[in-house]
Amino acid sequence: MGKDISKMEALIFTQKIAQLGKALWKSIEKDWQQWIKPFDLNINEHHILWIAYHLNGASISDVAKFGVMHVSTAFNFSKKLEERGFLTFSKKVEDKRNTYIQLTDAGEEIVRKLLDIYEPKKHTVLQGALPLKEIYGKFPDILELMAIVRNIYGEDFMEIFQKSFNHLEDALTDNKEADETKGQSEKEVV
Amino acid sequence: MGKDISKMEALIFTQKIAQLGKALWKSIEKDWQQWIKPFDLNINEHHILWIAYHLNGASISDVAKFGVMHVSTAFNFSKKLEERGFLTFSKKVEDKRNTYIQLTDAGEEIVRKLLDIYEPKKHTVLQGALPLKEIYGKFPDILELMAIVRNIYGEDFMEIFQKSFNHLEDALTDNKEADETKGQSEKEVV
Repeated sequence: MGKDISKMEALIFTQKIAQLGKALWKSIEKDWQQWIKPFDLNINEHHILWIAYHLNGASISDVAKFGVMHVSTAFNFSKKLEERGFLTFSKKVEDKRNTYIQLTDAGEEIVRKLLDIYEPKKHTVLQGALPLKEIYGKFPDILELMAIVRNIYGEDFMEIFQKSFNHLEDALTDNKEADETKGQSEKEVV
Repeated sequence: MGKDISKMEALIFTQKIAQLGKALWKSIEKDWQQWIKPFDLNINEHHILWIAYHLNGASISDVAKFGVMHVSTAFNFSKKLEERGFLTFSKKVEDKRNTYIQLTDAGEEIVRKLLDIYEPKKHTVLQGALPLKEIYGKFPDILELMAIVRNIYGEDFMEIFQKSFNHLEDALTDNKEADETKGQSEKEVV
């Protein structure tokens, strides 16, 4: 009987997270698409640029792993980005089996411009989290979600994840300092 | 300056939830696809059957809303399910504008068979949540995620959500009682 209940619990949890995860992802997807629209990119293409930017170059298999896409998807979209002049392919002398990508200046500029034009008001998922920020003083840590993703994708996924956020913080701080030097002022953004 | 930081915080939260949400959804999607594969259904089709089953019939706009799909997607896949004999369309006398779907016996049987063949071992998201269950004695409540989804999709989304889980619990309890009457025993499932 305890075992029946554990199947029931399992089914209910699976359904709960499936419904919520689908709803969340559909909103993320819509927000992401409207954000990158001016640059004529799809989500996978922007994700590849994003990963290569924050990791300062990456192998196709890193892109596939961290971008949660098939290796062939990572490769094909990288190829398209190469044709548009946003990245270059290379091999490393010490690692001939993997293909690496590195952003060109044009590729880096896209990632930076997207950070510039980012408008919190247009991101419904962020807006959905704002009431929690108002109560707790910060955005939710979503630790349960992080723990589940960590258990599924492993420690190196989380390491790349953390690395990209550290780099993002640095990049934004640099941008901000540059803006302050220029004497720009920012409006209320959220 | 405080406002720059709030843009930075916003961007980091948006990226964090986007990366995690994508990773989570890709796993949910894979789990869901392997689960329903024996019945030659895609995720949207199963989602439609699921909603109609747990709400005991639904309008196409309910299906679209709760299933987080376009109305045309909900309609077109419902049409396919009708052609395969799994549901029927109808209009209500008091509400001529909406189209309603109702599962046939064959449609209900699919949903019930899927509950029967559900195997927790094959659901990676569930497996990813197990360590939390071991620590806390139950699966994570994912309340932050629920709050975000509630803020985005509104109160009626959450009501349908809750209604479908109450119905699922009842359905599983009925199944279990039926099994016990038949004297079936269950193996360890998780």
